[in-house]
Amino acid sequence: MSSSVRPVLCCFMALVLTACGSPGDEAGTAVLAQAVRPVFQLKQAPAFDPASIPAYDGDHAQVYSHIDQHLDEHLAHLQRWLRQPSISAQDDGVLEMAELLRQDLEDMGFAEAELVPTDGHPGVWGYYDAGAEKTLMLYMMYDVQPVNPDDWQVPPFAGALVDHELGSVLMARGATNQKGPERALLNALQSIIDVHGTLPVNIMLAAEGEEELGSPHYSQIIDKYEERLKQADGVLFPFNSQDRDGGMTMSLGVKGIIYFELEARGNENGGPMKNEIHGSYKAMVDAPAWRLTQALASLTTADGNTIRVPGYYDDIRPPSDEEYSLINGMLGSWDEAEIKQQLGVERWVDGKTGADALMDYLYMPTLNIDGMWSGYTGEGVKTILPHVATAKVDSRLPPGIDPERALTSIRNYLDAQGFADVVMRKKSAYPAAQTSIEAPLVRAAIGVFNRHQASVRVQPRLAGSAPFYQFTERLKLPLVFTGLGLGTGAHGPNEFMLIKPAEGVKAAGLAEIEKGYVDLVYALSR
Amino acid sequence: MSSSVRPVLCCFMALVLTACGSPGDEAGTAVLAQAVRPVFQLKQAPAFDPASIPAYDGDHAQVYSHIDQHLDEHLAHLQRWLRQPSISAQDDGVLEMAELLRQDLEDMGFAEAELVPTDGHPGVWGYYDAGAEKTLMLYMMYDVQPVNPDDWQVPPFAGALVDHELGSVLMARGATNQKGPERALLNALQSIIDVHGTLPVNIMLAAEGEEELGSPHYSQIIDKYEERLKQADGVLFPFNSQDRDGGMTMSLGVKGIIYFELEARGNENGGPMKNEIHGSYKAMVDAPAWRLTQALASLTTADGNTIRVPGYYDDIRPPSDEEYSLINGMLGSWDEAEIKQQLGVERWVDGKTGADALMDYLYMPTLNIDGMWSGYTGEGVKTILPHVATAKVDSRLPPGIDPERALTSIRNYLDAQGFADVVMRKKSAYPAAQTSIEAPLVRAAIGVFNRHQASVRVQPRLAGSAPFYQFTERLKLPLVFTGLGLGTGAHGPNEFMLIKPAEGVKAAGLAEIEKGYVDLVYALSR
Repeated sequence: MSSSVRPVLCCFMALVLTACGSPGDEAGTAVLAQAVRPVFQLKQAPAFDPASIPAYDGDHAQVYSHIDQHLDEHLAHLQRWLRQPSISAQDDGVLEMAELLRQDLEDMGFAEAELVPTDGHPGVWGYYDAGAEKTLMLYMMYDVQPVNPDDWQVPPFAGALVDHELGSVLMARGATNQKGPERALLNALQSIIDVHGTLPVNIMLAAEGEEELGSPHYSQIIDKYEERLKQADGVLFPFNSQDRDGGMTMSLGVKGIIYFELEARGNENGGPMKNEIHGSYKAMVDAPAWRLTQALASLTTADGNTIRVPGYYDDIRPPSDEEYSLINGMLGSWDEAEIKQQLGVERWVDGKTGADALMDYLYMPTLNIDGMWSGYTGEGVKTILPHVATAKVDSRLPPGIDPERALTSIRNYLDAQGFADVVMRKKSAYPAAQTSIEAPLVRAAIGVFNRHQASVRVQPRLAGSAPFYQFTERLKLPLVFTGLGLGTGAHGPNEFMLIKPAEGVKAAGLAEIEKGYVDLVYALSR
Repeated sequence: MSSSVRPVLCCFMALVLTACGSPGDEAGTAVLAQAVRPVFQLKQAPAFDPASIPAYDGDHAQVYSHIDQHLDEHLAHLQRWLRQPSISAQDDGVLEMAELLRQDLEDMGFAEAELVPTDGHPGVWGYYDAGAEKTLMLYMMYDVQPVNPDDWQVPPFAGALVDHELGSVLMARGATNQKGPERALLNALQSIIDVHGTLPVNIMLAAEGEEELGSPHYSQIIDKYEERLKQADGVLFPFNSQDRDGGMTMSLGVKGIIYFELEARGNENGGPMKNEIHGSYKAMVDAPAWRLTQALASLTTADGNTIRVPGYYDDIRPPSDEEYSLINGMLGSWDEAEIKQQLGVERWVDGKTGADALMDYLYMPTLNIDGMWSGYTGEGVKTILPHVATAKVDSRLPPGIDPERALTSIRNYLDAQGFADVVMRKKSAYPAAQTSIEAPLVRAAIGVFNRHQASVRVQPRLAGSAPFYQFTERLKLPLVFTGLGLGTGAHGPNEFMLIKPAEGVKAAGLAEIEKGYVDLVYALSR
């Protein structure tokens, strides 16, 4: 969703008029009906302009200079972290990485630096008491995705510097997701401490080692410090957010998600119960693969785009005035053609364009088949009646839709349609998260980006999901997952973080990333 | 479907009355409607009794004695064939096996013995001119399925004799499917020739090396000898058909089949065209997995048991009087409970029982999902929108349904339902095959089995498929795929053929199998 084009506000209304099929429709209303998706249309509202927030103007020349002088040492910290594997899915190096983080916090002068046992991998808690008025909570993940070393141009845990067209990059698993930006932030804090003896804000750090597993036990970490955490002024998840032109998109929320498996098996009411049987017996025997197919198909319209579960769209919270202003502010720079090209998609659902497609991206719950399988999936011809058929399904939930209620409504609908025999296995369920543009932490971040000429575009949310509700809904704290810097390859081979940009590349290198974090903690302290 | 229980005719009407939900319905009629399966009910008709055919009474003591005296040599011929791999799918030993068969025919005195080039593996043609009035066509396959040697208790191409609870068995790939019974038949012919100098019938042998690939080029072999083959009196496919109690089921036909893949992909009208994309984009992007699911679901009722394609059931040829007599004759010994136990099924479609279930087995076309797959099918949670989704589907076709018309009607239906974007890839298509109980070859076979105390049950057809239409429809010849003997493990590990039965096992050993084939060719010659 990134674009280097700055919002051009004068284009906005023209775009809206082009995008809305029925310009006469009342703006801002949702059309609801059975098996009809609501349509959220744009509304005339002030367009939020990130440039309206003054660039941060604090003077931290001494700290900047300290960063420049210690940049080799700071880079070495990133490499030290990246050379320690911490693959949560394979329990490879996880405890070692937790202890490494804990020790770093202790060495930096954190008053509290401890492992937090959970039913899974341990969390890490740190508290830096600066005696300050404001407190910044840092969310961190210290685990990484598995690797297939054969796919990498360098060993994934060597912490290698590689010459790339973008400049000198640090290429390793975790370089951008998420150890690189996390350690860059700690480097920034270290330089402030080294220069001034303390920090301008108190820090509460609550890290987990299971983010790549879907954060199944993060709530146990929050449990232990909940009352203290609620006193914080905001949560920062350090993130390399820039593109090569220096532009960045700041998302103030994420959708929630439910993820479940549906499975049909032969049972006492029909179908093979032990194993696959010869396909010719279909003449007498029920087929789990048909049951799954019919159960799935009952969930959507024939085009697969509208959810038939009664009431599924009812609880969507319509766009707020604040969100309308954000959308109006981002629409001029929303480059559909570029996104289509990146995704390899030529046409959006229902042929929607412009604001209509963007509103779906931001506000529609989805129902998506992530995977499905049954029987023989190899080459050629094999004639069997499989005894089991399975699908993985997820639904992204915009604000307003409760995940447990969504799960229940799907289960009830399947039952009502006669598919009580189709088993539903819940894998994940959490709600959306939303932060206001009015939050001081958000405004501080935008002010910092304006200072660093990082053209920022603010969107109400990502269509993707993360369990940030732990912060925004439970702790009632504003959250930003952002920062200067550029990285790519998360979850894939050759993951990297840009350290020293090449000529013409406007994304920040390590020194400027750290200076950005310095500015951010000072901006929040005001 | 095998059972050792002989038909008990006096039980038949009671069973029918139990089986039919509405005893008042007119028997023998089909109820047709939109998305309703026809129901073929039993009709009072004379019950065919295999015992009504006199046991074959020819005297071939000299030939029998020759077989007994040369049994070691005959067994060695089976082993020689089994030690020559001929895996068609892997082109392993195929040409060598073709030449071995051809040479055997030449050595036996076949006037013609030649390889027949095709677009695939070659066929083998043989003609033995006995100057006889009658001519028997032999269908043979000389190829075998691939093996996984690790799963075998003996090397699969060693031709080992193994002590088994059933007796001494020859355990090797191809032992029962199909080299064992085929070479046993040639042994029988050899003994006749050795004793009498010639055969009582002429032999036309047309073998293929691609049966395990679905016989894609067998018609090319038929092409070359079509006019001569049409002069034959029947076709024999030698087969180990007995169970341990000596009983056997003789099927006078097979269903036809169409096999095709359905595939949905992102295209210019929507969906990801290059690769999977992040699942959150479902809010804006069409999903091939939903398209496939909806297209599949449109083909059947919600229970997956009735085909919605208009007219799909219209062309079923209803049971003939002859078939009613066969069904009435087999019903008393049709052991549903045993079949359910073998299949691991507790309930037939719609809770049908008895004759109703049997009629479905024999007369219903099926629509079956052999396999389907899309996206992520591993452990845990991965959120993607797959760019492709595929299903393998087959439909078994009873006599009357034309395979090409069936394919076209499904394609047209999908188009009419709005699924023109879902691609259909035909993999196989051929019609049913049917032989009459009145054919001299069939009556000869039953007479021989009656002589050998092999309790035979005759059913109109198997619900499975084989391209036997080449013989029954194209050449207009009766076909039997039968014989004394017991074997198991076709396509799996530890395939074997029983050579010398243990005490109490009533299935034939090699000597009696061969004597049965001796009897059969003489019985046909009368």
